[in-house]
Amino acid sequence: MSDKHFLPHIARMQGYVPGEQPQDSELIKLNTNENPYPPSPRVLERIRDACDGNLRRYPDAGAHNVRCRLGELFGVAAEQTLIGNGSDELLNIAVRCFVGPGDKVVYPWPTYSYYDKLVHMQDGRIVKIDFAADFTLPTDLPIEDARLTCIANPNSPSGTLTPVSVIATLAQRTRGILIVDEAYVDFTEGGCAHLIHQHPNVFVVRTMSKSFSLAGMRLGFGFAHADLVAGMWKVKDHYNINTLSLVAAAAALDDIATMQANAKRIRQTRDHLTRQLETLGFSVWDSAANFVLARIAAPAASWLYEELKQRRILVRYFDQPRLHDCLRISVGTEVETTALIEALAELLD
Amino acid sequence: MSDKHFLPHIARMQGYVPGEQPQDSELIKLNTNENPYPPSPRVLERIRDACDGNLRRYPDAGAHNVRCRLGELFGVAAEQTLIGNGSDELLNIAVRCFVGPGDKVVYPWPTYSYYDKLVHMQDGRIVKIDFAADFTLPTDLPIEDARLTCIANPNSPSGTLTPVSVIATLAQRTRGILIVDEAYVDFTEGGCAHLIHQHPNVFVVRTMSKSFSLAGMRLGFGFAHADLVAGMWKVKDHYNINTLSLVAAAAALDDIATMQANAKRIRQTRDHLTRQLETLGFSVWDSAANFVLARIAAPAASWLYEELKQRRILVRYFDQPRLHDCLRISVGTEVETTALIEALAELLD
Repeated sequence: MSDKHFLPHIARMQGYVPGEQPQDSELIKLNTNENPYPPSPRVLERIRDACDGNLRRYPDAGAHNVRCRLGELFGVAAEQTLIGNGSDELLNIAVRCFVGPGDKVVYPWPTYSYYDKLVHMQDGRIVKIDFAADFTLPTDLPIEDARLTCIANPNSPSGTLTPVSVIATLAQRTRGILIVDEAYVDFTEGGCAHLIHQHPNVFVVRTMSKSFSLAGMRLGFGFAHADLVAGMWKVKDHYNINTLSLVAAAAALDDIATMQANAKRIRQTRDHLTRQLETLGFSVWDSAANFVLARIAAPAASWLYEELKQRRILVRYFDQPRLHDCLRISVGTEVETTALIEALAELLD
Repeated sequence: MSDKHFLPHIARMQGYVPGEQPQDSELIKLNTNENPYPPSPRVLERIRDACDGNLRRYPDAGAHNVRCRLGELFGVAAEQTLIGNGSDELLNIAVRCFVGPGDKVVYPWPTYSYYDKLVHMQDGRIVKIDFAADFTLPTDLPIEDARLTCIANPNSPSGTLTPVSVIATLAQRTRGILIVDEAYVDFTEGGCAHLIHQHPNVFVVRTMSKSFSLAGMRLGFGFAHADLVAGMWKVKDHYNINTLSLVAAAAALDDIATMQANAKRIRQTRDHLTRQLETLGFSVWDSAANFVLARIAAPAASWLYEELKQRRILVRYFDQPRLHDCLRISVGTEVETTALIEALAELLD
């Protein structure tokens, strides 16, 4: 065995299993919270135009254009921004900077399960604090000696939102670093980017995977005090974002309107989906994201998941405490949503 | 100061400074070993064709197509391959898997200076062993208690090649992991991929940045025993390669002939460049890469670097022991090479 070569905590850990990505184009895919609408045609055109001989050159390691544009849009300096190969890379960089062996990393639970893997990679100590039943933030927070606290807001898989004022209070009272993971924030109002001006311990992370329909381009961005950014910059691979992703990011920021129109449509469909699910007997948490978490007493959620899959509708089932009687369902197009509701109605009949 | 939040070894380290990437298109850019020829038009076309609504979806986390194709081409199983966001990411994953605080990482020196940063990120201990004057491998290798040994082959900045038989012997005698960093191997004959069949401790790393003219797409790939790959896979970001880079990689592997034709042309220009530099009074190490390291007693190499830059020709100067009287010059087109030689002739006149 080659395990002898690996550091013990790496040998011990399990890898992350992302949601299924079947290549079946007939499938109604509502399992990984992708946007059901394509990226802006103007973004696609700019990427296409950049497919030329210049790809032989290294990308701009400083991501200058994109960082300046982000700064303008979010009211921060370029030096307070960081671009990642997906927001996952930014989370990865953060744990590598702030979490050593045995250091406490705290997050309310259940949430994005990849946090677990990131902490394992650093041999850190995970402290999960149960969300209240309604997914309001646990009152035990902050934990005094947490090196890092992560709040996904809106949270996944619940879709629920913690108000910015509550996050601000938490930031004030947290001694370690506070990551606010805003992957889904464009499907609601607000956001915490401005908190970095008052709180030098806050790292706000966003992504273009969901609202901008660019999961395939791997683009995350983050905001923090310039000193935090400068430190994390050292750990970032210098050419972490490829040329076409930089082009895509710049083009997407030039066409916020298309993203917002898609997000608005998704919010409308989400509200419709929620009402329909409730009519069918599900309890649905108030969602601020592009998915809903729906609970049902009977039949078993795992059975519904399998039956939907048979009917070529893929949703997410988590076989774990608090979620075993739930389905997480991404908000698709109106047509996809109708197909889902019809299939569920048949299964529950 | 926010340094209190950073792990001490991260706070202590300096960031990596990549070679300059000025946006001046008039510049003759011979400083970062990019390919002077564009990527295959067939590759560009396939990337363009993939710029569609599917970018809203996550990429294939398993990189199935590319790994199967790599396996076929290099005579290994798909499970023995790994794809990285540039070969830098693969090196990064490896140190994170194999190097803990105080662990020895050994490499002959001078070589790719990013190795230093990767070891700093893990709080490892760097052991640099001087190359012989002719850049043959130091006879002190292997070091008994090295957790990781890195050999860039061909080496940068020297361009020199260690024979595969010597690497094989080193692999046999090395107890820890041996990385063979073959970023430049397509500009010579051979390569070490097949060594993974005999040596479960060998990780061979390649890149599409140089020979395939795809530095802008960030594509590295690696070969190792399936157990090593499985362990490193856990540390890799699940969606580390974006959709268009996966398309580019597949297309590039379908058109090896274009890469080889460009590499052949570069080798011819390299040999011509070497002779011309020697005529001008430089000593040039035998290069197996797409650049040469050229030494001159007088005038100062740093002065030549600055003067060339004034003339809008950018080469690489390393202000460090053994290299302070050298220039590293990427092999450009024939026209660029002629311009460089003419400028040097004028400066040395």
